[in-house]
Amino acid sequence: MRIVVDAMGSDAYPQPDVAGSVLAAREWGDTILLVGDPSKIEAELAKHNTSGLKLEVVPASEVIEMTDKPAESAKRKLNSSMHIGMGLVRDEKADAFVTAGNTGAALAVATLHMKRIRGISRPVLTAVFRNPAGYTIMADFGANSDCRPEWLVEFATMANLYAKHALGIESPRVALLSNGEEEGKGNSLVHETLPLMQNQTQFHFVGNMEPKEVLRGDTDIIVHDGFTGNIMGKTLEATASMVTQLIREEIGKSPVSTLGGALARPAFRRVRKRIDPYEIGGAPLLGVNGIVIIGHGRSNDVAIKNAIRQARQAVEGKVLDAIKAGIEGTAS
Amino acid sequence: MRIVVDAMGSDAYPQPDVAGSVLAAREWGDTILLVGDPSKIEAELAKHNTSGLKLEVVPASEVIEMTDKPAESAKRKLNSSMHIGMGLVRDEKADAFVTAGNTGAALAVATLHMKRIRGISRPVLTAVFRNPAGYTIMADFGANSDCRPEWLVEFATMANLYAKHALGIESPRVALLSNGEEEGKGNSLVHETLPLMQNQTQFHFVGNMEPKEVLRGDTDIIVHDGFTGNIMGKTLEATASMVTQLIREEIGKSPVSTLGGALARPAFRRVRKRIDPYEIGGAPLLGVNGIVIIGHGRSNDVAIKNAIRQARQAVEGKVLDAIKAGIEGTAS
Repeated sequence: MRIVVDAMGSDAYPQPDVAGSVLAAREWGDTILLVGDPSKIEAELAKHNTSGLKLEVVPASEVIEMTDKPAESAKRKLNSSMHIGMGLVRDEKADAFVTAGNTGAALAVATLHMKRIRGISRPVLTAVFRNPAGYTIMADFGANSDCRPEWLVEFATMANLYAKHALGIESPRVALLSNGEEEGKGNSLVHETLPLMQNQTQFHFVGNMEPKEVLRGDTDIIVHDGFTGNIMGKTLEATASMVTQLIREEIGKSPVSTLGGALARPAFRRVRKRIDPYEIGGAPLLGVNGIVIIGHGRSNDVAIKNAIRQARQAVEGKVLDAIKAGIEGTAS
Repeated sequence: MRIVVDAMGSDAYPQPDVAGSVLAAREWGDTILLVGDPSKIEAELAKHNTSGLKLEVVPASEVIEMTDKPAESAKRKLNSSMHIGMGLVRDEKADAFVTAGNTGAALAVATLHMKRIRGISRPVLTAVFRNPAGYTIMADFGANSDCRPEWLVEFATMANLYAKHALGIESPRVALLSNGEEEGKGNSLVHETLPLMQNQTQFHFVGNMEPKEVLRGDTDIIVHDGFTGNIMGKTLEATASMVTQLIREEIGKSPVSTLGGALARPAFRRVRKRIDPYEIGGAPLLGVNGIVIIGHGRSNDVAIKNAIRQARQAVEGKVLDAIKAGIEGTAS
């Protein structure tokens, strides 16, 4: 398998991007193509023992930065690591593309090079978070701020096939995010989407669901428009950091609680691991004609390695073929 | 001052509702009118030393339960504590109404009895949460799932006057919730609302804001449609409980961390207090012709007392008059 990694992706590029690629190449033996500034990539590679690993460097002279405007950089920075890397996947010289870079730009460049899968109205950006029982896939996490009801059904169809074929969940539960499970709750998008969800036979729809139940792990997939989903995901992340920050502050206020905090440190570390979004690595952009995994900008090496794992699982599970067949199934 | 308290409001009614009213009557000396089943209220009052307190019992033979459908119960349960209590405020026999009951029903009954303030398109349900720097008012928390841009400006105008006159914040900062501060981010509602916010002169608008900044306390008021706001607020609450639950679980896994947890217990208690939504009491329904404070169903006696405090602050600050004058100011 050949996986392209955007070496200029993460906030701290190319360090975590290269280090994570080395970890992945060592663990799974795949060929990793590192795209970006060759001198910077080589300097980073020199810090690792790479003998026997299949690591290739692909030059790209431009970098799309986190602060760049997505549409503009997608149009102008044609020699960026994203353009060159996704071009390799488009030309079938590689199987998947992984980046921890500018999400909006990745979305724009992917749509440009890979095009949408026939029958798909809009690509969907997913995000994965841990719940106490396992993982939850959010769709849409921000690719489409304003959505039509039938798009949400497509998002669910794609996320369902990804969960089945890449993550091995036999019959993923799909729920529609709402501000209450009762009839009458929800906005007009939820009202219009609900009957479409209820009437389809492609996936296992379990109904409308509130954030509390989603966080508890009552569904494998939660579907929403990209604006609401992004607000929910970011609130989740911000609240978790706020609570851990408050605990740190309060524990530091007395010597006894500082001692207590020190004794409980391994427990805190496990909690942090259980709520850390970077543990998961990244999440796929679904609906384009290629495997694209987008990680968090603050990814460390383990997060990059995990994002590469997600790419290889999607390739091995033939997620693209499954989505193409699934969408044809809906259309026919 | 005469404040009506829905004795049949909270999940555990009438215990917290009555106990909180006793605390408030003792602290501030106001007359509290307890509306509900007289025998249940009297039985609860008998548990307290109420000598010298101005507590009156107003009979109401029906109860709107949490499980009742809002519109239906507002229409049919005309002898409920909400109907009778809000009727007292409408008839100017009391200054404010406090309930920890069914939010949707409170909204429907308030609109029915008190009517909208002239010039207001829709009443707005607020919610208040603590941030590390103080408090944040959310508007709308769920009264209006689908909103028009000009409604959001009205919500901001009302929340601003409430924050000024009831909470004493001199120049409240107002922000518009979005999934990114950059131009181009946001859904169509945000795009259409932004210029209206920028062009008004009624309040201090600080721009679009993401959940992370909101939680950090970068604004006093955050404005959004009722669907998104409810999802954000509920995600915040659910994440905070999830994190504290995970900490409890992980700390319990070893004797050393259990000891550490015990030593740090006062610190944890302070954290819980800092993130506990019940500490705040409740939040006003703004835009109707009367003061209505709606608390959380899970309110305890302190939360009820705090909700009563919010009611008296709103009465003392003449929030209704300020909103009426403020809205006229906009219209002229």
